[in-house]
Formats: sequence, C-alpha cells, structure tokens
Amino acid sequence: MAKISIAGATGYTGAELIRILYNHPEVDIVRITSERSAGFHFSAIFPQFRNLMDLTFEPLDPDAIAAGVDLVFLALPHTDSMHVTPRVIRQNVPVVDLSGDFRLNQAKVYTEWYKVDHAAPGEMEKGVYGLPELNREKIRGARFVANPGCYPTAALLGVAPLLKDSLIHLEGIIIDAKSGVTGGGKSPKAHLHFPEANESLMAYKVAEHQHTPEIEQEMERLAGRKIEINFTPHLIPMNRGVLCTIYAALNQNVTTKQLIDHYKSYYRGEPFVRILPAGTYPNTKNVRGTNACDIGLKVDARTGRVIVLSAIDNLVKGASGQAIQNMNLMLGLDEKTGLSLPAMTP
Amino acid sequence: MAKISIAGATGYTGAELIRILYNHPEVDIVRITSERSAGFHFSAIFPQFRNLMDLTFEPLDPDAIAAGVDLVFLALPHTDSMHVTPRVIRQNVPVVDLSGDFRLNQAKVYTEWYKVDHAAPGEMEKGVYGLPELNREKIRGARFVANPGCYPTAALLGVAPLLKDSLIHLEGIIIDAKSGVTGGGKSPKAHLHFPEANESLMAYKVAEHQHTPEIEQEMERLAGRKIEINFTPHLIPMNRGVLCTIYAALNQNVTTKQLIDHYKSYYRGEPFVRILPAGTYPNTKNVRGTNACDIGLKVDARTGRVIVLSAIDNLVKGASGQAIQNMNLMLGLDEKTGLSLPAMTP
Amino acid sequence: MAKISIAGATGYTGAELIRILYNHPEVDIVRITSERSAGFHFSAIFPQFRNLMDLTFEPLDPDAIAAGVDLVFLALPHTDSMHVTPRVIRQNVPVVDLSGDFRLNQAKVYTEWYKVDHAAPGEMEKGVYGLPELNREKIRGARFVANPGCYPTAALLGVAPLLKDSLIHLEGIIIDAKSGVTGGGKSPKAHLHFPEANESLMAYKVAEHQHTPEIEQEMERLAGRKIEINFTPHLIPMNRGVLCTIYAALNQNVTTKQLIDHYKSYYRGEPFVRILPAGTYPNTKNVRGTNACDIGLKVDARTGRVIVLSAIDNLVKGASGQAIQNMNLMLGLDEKTGLSLPAMTP
Amino acid sequence: MAKISIAGATGYTGAELIRILYNHPEVDIVRITSERSAGFHFSAIFPQFRNLMDLTFEPLDPDAIAAGVDLVFLALPHTDSMHVTPRVIRQNVPVVDLSGDFRLNQAKVYTEWYKVDHAAPGEMEKGVYGLPELNREKIRGARFVANPGCYPTAALLGVAPLLKDSLIHLEGIIIDAKSGVTGGGKSPKAHLHFPEANESLMAYKVAEHQHTPEIEQEMERLAGRKIEINFTPHLIPMNRGVLCTIYAALNQNVTTKQLIDHYKSYYRGEPFVRILPAGTYPNTKNVRGTNACDIGLKVDARTGRVIVLSAIDNLVKGASGQAIQNMNLMLGLDEKTGLSLPAMTP
Repeated sequence: MAKISIAGATGYTGAELIRILYNHPEVDIVRITSERSAGFHFSAIFPQFRNLMDLTFEPLDPDAIAAGVDLVFLALPHTDSMHVTPRVIRQNVPVVDLSGDFRLNQAKVYTEWYKVDHAAPGEMEKGVYGLPELNREKIRGARFVANPGCYPTAALLGVAPLLKDSLIHLEGIIIDAKSGVTGGGKSPKAHLHFPEANESLMAYKVAEHQHTPEIEQEMERLAGRKIEINFTPHLIPMNRGVLCTIYAALNQNVTTKQLIDHYKSYYRGEPFVRILPAGTYPNTKNVRGTNACDIGLKVDARTGRVIVLSAIDNLVKGASGQAIQNMNLMLGLDEKTGLSLPAMTP
Repeated sequence: MAKISIAGATGYTGAELIRILYNHPEVDIVRITSERSAGFHFSAIFPQFRNLMDLTFEPLDPDAIAAGVDLVFLALPHTDSMHVTPRVIRQNVPVVDLSGDFRLNQAKVYTEWYKVDHAAPGEMEKGVYGLPELNREKIRGARFVANPGCYPTAALLGVAPLLKDSLIHLEGIIIDAKSGVTGGGKSPKAHLHFPEANESLMAYKVAEHQHTPEIEQEMERLAGRKIEINFTPHLIPMNRGVLCTIYAALNQNVTTKQLIDHYKSYYRGEPFVRILPAGTYPNTKNVRGTNACDIGLKVDARTGRVIVLSAIDNLVKGASGQAIQNMNLMLGLDEKTGLSLPAMTP
Repeated sequence: MAKISIAGATGYTGAELIRILYNHPEVDIVRITSERSAGFHFSAIFPQFRNLMDLTFEPLDPDAIAAGVDLVFLALPHTDSMHVTPRVIRQNVPVVDLSGDFRLNQAKVYTEWYKVDHAAPGEMEKGVYGLPELNREKIRGARFVANPGCYPTAALLGVAPLLKDSLIHLEGIIIDAKSGVTGGGKSPKAHLHFPEANESLMAYKVAEHQHTPEIEQEMERLAGRKIEINFTPHLIPMNRGVLCTIYAALNQNVTTKQLIDHYKSYYRGEPFVRILPAGTYPNTKNVRGTNACDIGLKVDARTGRVIVLSAIDNLVKGASGQAIQNMNLMLGLDEKTGLSLPAMTP
Repeated sequence: MAKISIAGATGYTGAELIRILYNHPEVDIVRITSERSAGFHFSAIFPQFRNLMDLTFEPLDPDAIAAGVDLVFLALPHTDSMHVTPRVIRQNVPVVDLSGDFRLNQAKVYTEWYKVDHAAPGEMEKGVYGLPELNREKIRGARFVANPGCYPTAALLGVAPLLKDSLIHLEGIIIDAKSGVTGGGKSPKAHLHFPEANESLMAYKVAEHQHTPEIEQEMERLAGRKIEINFTPHLIPMNRGVLCTIYAALNQNVTTKQLIDHYKSYYRGEPFVRILPAGTYPNTKNVRGTNACDIGLKVDARTGRVIVLSAIDNLVKGASGQAIQNMNLMLGLDEKTGLSLPAMTP
C-alpha cells in the first residue's frame, strides 16, 4: 500500500483527488493540508465525505509533507506552487504538481502569460509534462511531473494525431474551447455567482489565456516546429466539462473515415481515449466524472479543413484523474488502477 | 461470481444499475433487455459506456430471462411490470422489481391511486418491501423484493424514528417533497423539455401522487395504526436528488439535540444513513451518485413541531442503489458491496 | 413627470427598479446612489443597460437624496436601512423602503429574528405595510411604505383568503417555501457560488428565517388573533421565483371548486392576482419578470386540509415591481402603470 | 392602429412575437393560427398569458389569414412555410416569414442543405433578406421579407464590418457558434429532454448546418465574391442566447482600438448594435429578451487574426424581435417602436 500526501486539498482538484483515491486499491492518503482550513476535518469542508473520510487538515510545511510517504500531490494555486514545490522536491519524494507553475519550460514565457516573474526558474525544465498518451515513458521514470492544464489536455489529445505525417498546415490552427464553471475554482467570484453565471455565455481572456503557450509548447515538441495558435476559452453554465473545437487546414486529400482510422491507430491501446464513429461528436456529459477523453471529427471537403472535437472532465482527465494516472505510472502500478469510472449520466 | 439479468435497461434506473454494478466485485451482468432497443449495443443507447460495456439488448422473454442467472432485476415501467413479474417469479429465481406494481399490498388501493386495475392482485402481498433499514431481515430471506419508490425511501427514512416511542401525533403529518427531473423518466415529455423545465418550479399531482399510499402503508406498519398524510411533490430544475421536508406535531417536550440523539440511536450501525449535527441540513448534492440518505432536523419549540429534512439521490438510494443493496442481502453478500461511492460534488 | 431617486441601486432589487421604470411613462429617475460604485456609470456595473441608461452613481447622502424629487426608493440591505431611512423621511418626501427594517412593528420581535437591535424603534410603526391587495387604501395615503419581503408577499397572498370567514384552523399552518438564488442577493457567497448552488437543493434557516414574524404579523392583522406558523425556506437552482406551498386544516366541508370561487371573489378586480382553475398549479416561470402572483389550490378531503400554491417573481412582485405598484398608488397614478409585463418564458 | 395576423403561434417564435407585440403601441393582433391547438385559447397553451391575451387559435387558412389585416407574420416550421407562404403573398398583404424557406436565393442550394426539394422555387428570390442593419432600404419598400436565422443574424452582424475596406482574407473564416436550447424549438426531443441537455455540451451538424449557406450568401453579397466558411454550432445548457466567435486573418496591420473604431463607425446610429470597449466581450445574458446585438473584438497581433464575438437573443434579434423591427420598417413606423426592452438580468 503506497502512502501519499495532498497539499491544498480544499480546492476542487484536491477534493477530486480524494474522491477518486477513496476507491483506489493500492493507495492510502495519510496527510492533507490547507492553510485556510487547518484544524478542520475534511468532511467539515466537504460534507459529502461525512462518515467516509476523517483526516484533519494540517497547515502546509513543505519540508515535512513528504515524511513517510511515497508520493506527494501538490494541488496549490499557480504562483503559490512555485514557492513550495522546489522545497518538496528536495525531500527526494516523487511529486505530481497540479498547478501551472512547472508546465512551461521558459521563465520568460511564464512571465509573459502569467504576468508575474517565476520564483524558481531553475526548476522549470525539471518537471516532466504529465500527459501519458504523449509522454508515457518519461513519466514512468520521473520524480517530478507537471500535471497538464484542463484546456491543454483536451486540446493536445485532439490535435496530436494531426501533427503526425504532416497532415495539416501548422499555420492558422484555431482552438475554440468551452469550459464548465468548476474550471474557475472554488473561491466565490462576482462573475461566477450563481445568478451571474447561470443562463449566461461569454468568452474570456481572449488571446490572453495562460494555457495558450502550454498548448503551443507541447504542439511544437510534437511537430518539431514553431507553432502559434488562436485559443479562445468560453464559460459554459454547467459544473464540469471541457470541449475543444479545433480547426486546421488539411495538407492532403483525406476523408473523414480515413482520418478517424488514423486517430484510432494513433491511440491504439490507449485506455482513456475513445475515437467516435463518423457523424458522432463528443458530449462532455459522457465523460463526466471519468478519466476519458472522447474525440470526434469531420473533414469539410468544401473548405479543406478538419474540425476535431475533444471532450474531457476538467476535474478528472483535466486535473485529478490524470494526476492519479501519472501517479500510477510513477509508482509502477497498472495505469488504469482506480480509474475505472463509468460516467454518471445524467 | 453471481450472474444477473436486467429487464428494461434503457431507462434511467436500468442504466444506473449497470453504472453501479460495473464496479461490483461479486456480480456479472449477463443479459439486458429492451423492447425499443433490442439488437442495439448498450453503448449505442448510453454512449458514456462506449468501450466499457458491450452487451446487446435482447427482447424481453419473461420465461427465459432467468435462465442461468442468480437474480433478475426488473426495471420496467409500472403497469408493465405487473404483467411480466409473475412469470419471472415462477422461474424460481430471486427477483428485485423496481416498479411500483408490487409495493402496495391491496389491489383496491393500487387501483385508486394508479388509476388502473392490477393484473396480478394475488401476487401483491408476496413482494417484500425492500427498504433494508426498516426491513432487513425479511429481505435477507426473500425471493421477491419490491424495491421502494424514490419519494417513499426519503420520506420513510426521515419519518421512521418519529414513529417509535410515540414521539409525535399521527394526525397532521405533512411531507413536502422535491425532486430532480430524472424522477420523471427518460422519455421526452412536454413539461420536461429543457426550456420548459429549466428555470422553472412547480408542484404536481397535488394530493394525488401514487407514492402517497406507499408511504402511508409502511408508516402504518411501523406505527401499528391508520395514518393519512399530506404529500406534495415538486419538480426542481436539476438532474438528480429528492429532498423531503417533513412536518409533525410533537407529543413530548424534546430538544433538537435529544431528537438528533434519538435518530442516531435508531440508525446506529446503518452504513447508508447519516444524521447531521444540529443546525446543519442535508443538501441533495452531498448524496448525488451515492446510496446515502442524509437526515437533519430541528425542533421548533414555538409551534411544538419538528421539521425533518431527508435527502437521497432518486436514482441510487431511491432506485438502483437500493436495488443492489437488496441484491447483496438476498445473495448473502456484504450489504455495502459495490456501494462505496463518494458523491461527485460538484 | 414625477422625479425619483433610488438609494442602493447596485443590488438586484435596485437594478430591477430601473429595468421596470425604464418603460414607465410617468416617472424619471434622476439620482441613483451606491457606496461601492460611486463615480461609476450605471452601465459599468450593469452592462445590460449600455446605451440605455447613463446616470452615474453618487454616494448616498440621506439629507440630499430627496432634493427635488417626488419619491425616494431605498433599496439598501437590512440593518443599513434603519440608519438611513429616518433621515430620508425627515426630508418630507414619500419613501418606499425595500428593506426588512420597517416591516415589523415591534423592536423586540425585530431583535429576536434579525439578531440585532433596531436603531430607530420609534419609526417602526410609521411604515405602512406595502401589500396593495391587502392594504391598498392605507398605501394610497401613505408617506412611508415598508415594502414587503418576497416570501411574505407570496405567503400572504396565498393564505389571506383562508383567514376570512373562519375557513381554517389557525393552529398548524405550514408554509413550505422555495426560492431562486437571486433571493440571496448579488454579493458572492460560498454557498451561492455557481458550482455549489447548481444541481443542489437544501433547506436553510429552518424555523429561524426573519420573514416568519413578518408573515405572522400580517396574518394576525387579518385574522384578529395570535398566529404561529412553521415556515421553511429552500434554495432552488434557478435565478428567479418564489413558490409557497401552504398547508392548513379546514374548518368546514368545502370542495376545491368552492374554495377556488372564494379566492376568485376575494381577489375580484385585482390586476396582479390570478386564480388558476382546479387541477392546475402555478409555475414560477409563468410570472417571471412580472408583477403577477399566480395561485392554485386543492382540497384534500381525505385529510381535511387545503394545499395552496402561490408563485411570484421574487425580484418583481416580491420586491421592485411591488415597490413601483406602491409608488403608483402613493403618487396617484393608475396602479398598473409600467407594470404590464408579460412573462419572458422560456 | 395596424392589424396583424400570426400563423404558427404555438412555437417559441410565435409566442415571442406576441410577448413583444403586447406592449407595441401601434399594432393589434387580430388572428392567430395553429393546427395542433385550433380551438384553444392562447393562454391554455402559454399560461404566462393568462388574463393578458385571450385570442383563440384558428386553423391556418392561407387564403383567409390576410383578410382585413395590414401584415402577416408566418412563424411556421421550415418545409411547411414553402407551401403556405406563396398563397399568403398572393393575398397582396405584407408578409414577414420567419422560416428558413425563403432566405436562400437558389433552389439547388436549398436542396443541398435542407435535404428536401423546394416547393416554390420561383418565389425564392422575391423575399427581401430582413437584416435591417445591412438591408434597411430594401426592407422599407418590401412586401415580402424573409426574416434571418438566429445564427446568421449574429454571424453577419459580427463579420460585416470586416468585409468592408478589404480588412480580412476571405479564405479561412471560421464561425464557431453557440446556442441556448430554445434554438431547437418547442417540440420535445430526446436530446433536449431536461436531464439530457442539462449539464451537457456538444457540437452538432458539424459542417452540415443549414444556416451555413445563408451566412455565405449574405457575406458574398457584401464582399462581392464567393466565400466559403467553416460554421460549427454547439448546444449550450441555457434557455436563450446565441454567441458567435468569429476568426479571420487580417489583411492589414490594425490595432484592436482601430478596429473597434471601425465597427463603431460602421454601425453609427444603429439603435440595436452595441460595440463594446476593448477588453470587454459580450455575454448573452446582457441581450436576453432584447433586440440588441452586442459585439466585442480583439486583434491577436501574434497570429495576425481578429477574433470577433457577437451575442444576440436567438428568439428576439434572432427571430421575433427582428421580425417586428422589419414590420416597423414595412409599415412606416419608427423602427424601434415596441422594442425598447432592457434585458432581464439575471
């Protein structure tokens, strides 16, 4: 039985780690931290866990959180994580960081998009980008995994097969993304107040979202070339789910069926990626609560473009489920352990 | 490994049986039926199960559904079930019927509330009422369990402790109930069309809902006396959840704290009932997707009344989860097997 | 053209006053105040009014807000209003106060339910209770109207006809109330954060809600006797709407049809009350955005009780629409002016 | 006082015509038709109109609907309208057709996208495309106006200023559109059943939606050149609202501020178009219930693209409000009459 700690367990991703690990047969949670809620029972903050989970939040001590555990999850806000993570890594324990602070390789790019200087630029290259479908072998051997963002997970899984075999032009790729409200975190905010977010639809951070360089960096790694995309996130009045609608100009004459076959071949054997049949498109509700990514696509012969749709649950495959998938790989467990979760629909 | 069949697996309760049984370690689903969808894969109707479940719907043959299985779930609409269930029982296999057709003991009462004559009045008394917290021993030995309705489950678990020790007047009990929209089933209906049910709130079947006599019958069994209640269901714009607000006049001078202690004692050892501390009231989201029933209460000394709130997920503790709890008891398994489900919140 | 001021126009009720008055043919808004937003354009806070309304928020000066105007609306939070209102009244201008601070007549009762001492107990009896259907003549002559709460409006309109002709027992009246989330105001709060309030259902302030004594006070005025009710509010995942489900024991043998006729007669000529035919119950969506109150009822002969359902829009008939109805009466205008608003459904 | 008839008043657009015309000072509704509901009162189908509107539905007689009226609205489903409209036009009365049947000029294109042959190809060119901001003078003199679709209205108002002065490349324009559920009509459908559409997000009719050629046709008219776009609609779990996210490659070096000024200049004097300041993007809730179109934009200098966001209420500016705007023009009334509707938010 592996022992793990979770720092920052009062946010949605922290609680989701605990929801999924609750039924994980190979892992015990031994320590959870929270600044705001130190001294409280976990179920005082998350009453859905009453009678199920009775750990007490401790204040976060980066030098002690790793004591006696086999892996640490850091589920802290970005700009907090960069101060804490280096100290945790130094304890010589495997770490999965769910924040955005160690996904980008370059401090300059971080500053440009996150609008703040990075406190630990020297550690930025150490984090292995934790998208198992694209990076599995590196994750297996890693001590420090930077868990991908929700939008980048959906976007990269949707676009990756197109970057193989020069199928598309690398200019003019557009990713129009939509997210449920949990993507905005657990702290109340004026625009996420129920009467404001309900019956409401808008784009935000147009051409300015910090996930843009993360998507580009990993696309460039796959394509071996500089890539600049348009990325536009939208806020959708529902709790969970990310859907990316990806537009790219095809380099070759290819049918929808052929491209679906290419995707199936690209993701052969992947336990969490499902390629939908022609004429069928993903719905976020079919992956809700699960670690799956559903992908559908259509070639528009008229315009020479392909439209790819990819859907995930932002809190699971887009955060905590993927973190556990990474943990499984890092600890040498079967990657699927604890992640056999059929969607709760409706 | 026990083998089971599910008749009527295209409705929400059928699909929910399969969602929960998917991770049940002691049970294999070997046969699913549907009239409308015979010949289709399960995942063609419920795409969230793509790659997870590949049984094909068969047409329902009541004489064959039990062949080679250890238990049959019947998830048919009421008024259908009464024609099918007697033939299945005759196969001499344990049966859990999720419909309303065998919960009432008297054909006359059935006709009065369901507005149709019962096709198998002779079988009505054979069904054991499947509310384990109130009827566990009978269920353990039963061959035929009538699984309770969603409203009766929440109402009875909320009111049962009050019926012990003459705590309340049996006249004037009021149960004001609220349900999410899945309680209305999976078939599209004008008033459940999204734009009609969304941002909408109403009572329905006022003083006419067919769950009224089911609640009264079981209350009478507990109290040993005739009881007539007011029961008013309301439709709430959310997917899942039932909340019952129960009002009763107290017979004795008792504090909120004393009554909470009484409830805790009444439900001592129950794995799925949680009694909340004073000043705290249940929220349906904390039991969503789970087999739990959360109960909170308040004594209003001014009026001499107690207000009890009880919350369940209508598709789990109010239907399929409870059916599996009953199955576990009938097959001699640990009652909690497969039902350790933390709520997915949010 | 009458001139009016609005104090506290950054809340939902302030904005709703402006939405409705925008098309009122006899009134000009000349001054709006806000502490938080002083100096901002109205449409900077409420972008739906861009190009439509360009007043700038001023800080609130109770001694100046009435200068040159014919009536002042005070849409301040309760416990703020009691400090401001007495100074505004002194300006000798008609005032409609939308807060809860001057609805109760007794300081002792206020302290008991609002958990704070009243700052101006001597003014408490001066406010005329602004429910025109029950109090029209007094409002017509009033200089100071205390606008009713949302729950009391729905509850009192629903129950008032029963208090005439000794139709019901005055003991054991139960009002189970449900409200959309705008009832909780515009300031973000943890339990009203979208992911928390969405797909969620709970009771709150059980037997402790400050609208309880307001309902009782006005019921007592109608009945001429002391009345104690059970009042339980619930939070519903939708923006607008209040539905009250009222239970009372009948004193007489009366049919649903007879009671509906009684209600129709009681509310004859009322422009904003609609009595629904037998078998039909109100839905909050049918009054959304309007000043209407829809009422339906059912006599349950089995239990000797009547169940009355009454629905309003909490921000219109439950707040700003009713305030304008009161203003119309106070200024000698046709009561319906500006309030001919068909519901926007869906 | 002009007299008007409405054919097909049981759908959402028919009811919305009546909601808005209810307060229109220059128009009387004298006749409403419905096949399904002939003989019923309007308020029996739309109970929100109880006591407000008491016309009775008549069956539709295309030869009689125009008798004695000044204008006819046809709010029939597409493929129905093409059979009825020619007969109504022949009555020599001004007609606004809200269906899609007479928006396209070419029967071949209609067949290609609507998958059915057009029954009245000879009439297709007679309909004036009723988008007043782009086509006002023709509408003023028209006897037969084809009212635009919801998506085309939002898309065309968003993209039109870019087609002036060769600001963008005409290749590679992408319109990613999102709509609330009322866009799917009033008839219950499996995928619009509340539990299916709620907490759900998906694209549909990818590269196959029948509004695509309508958008292209009008863009071509403005640009004077053949244009092929990618258009992808998505279904959003809310009642009302369309948001179009438009991507186009710029031909010129232009800043966000310059482009906003261009838009302001292009729409100078337009009563229903609002251009938002830099850094601000439209939200459908701010136009809900109104005839406004809100537009925001951002130049992404990195990629040389502009992202334009345009939002409307699909039932108002996207259907019935625009139809009334067209009616006002056709009848020689002030274009804004009856359309001064501040949004009901929240």
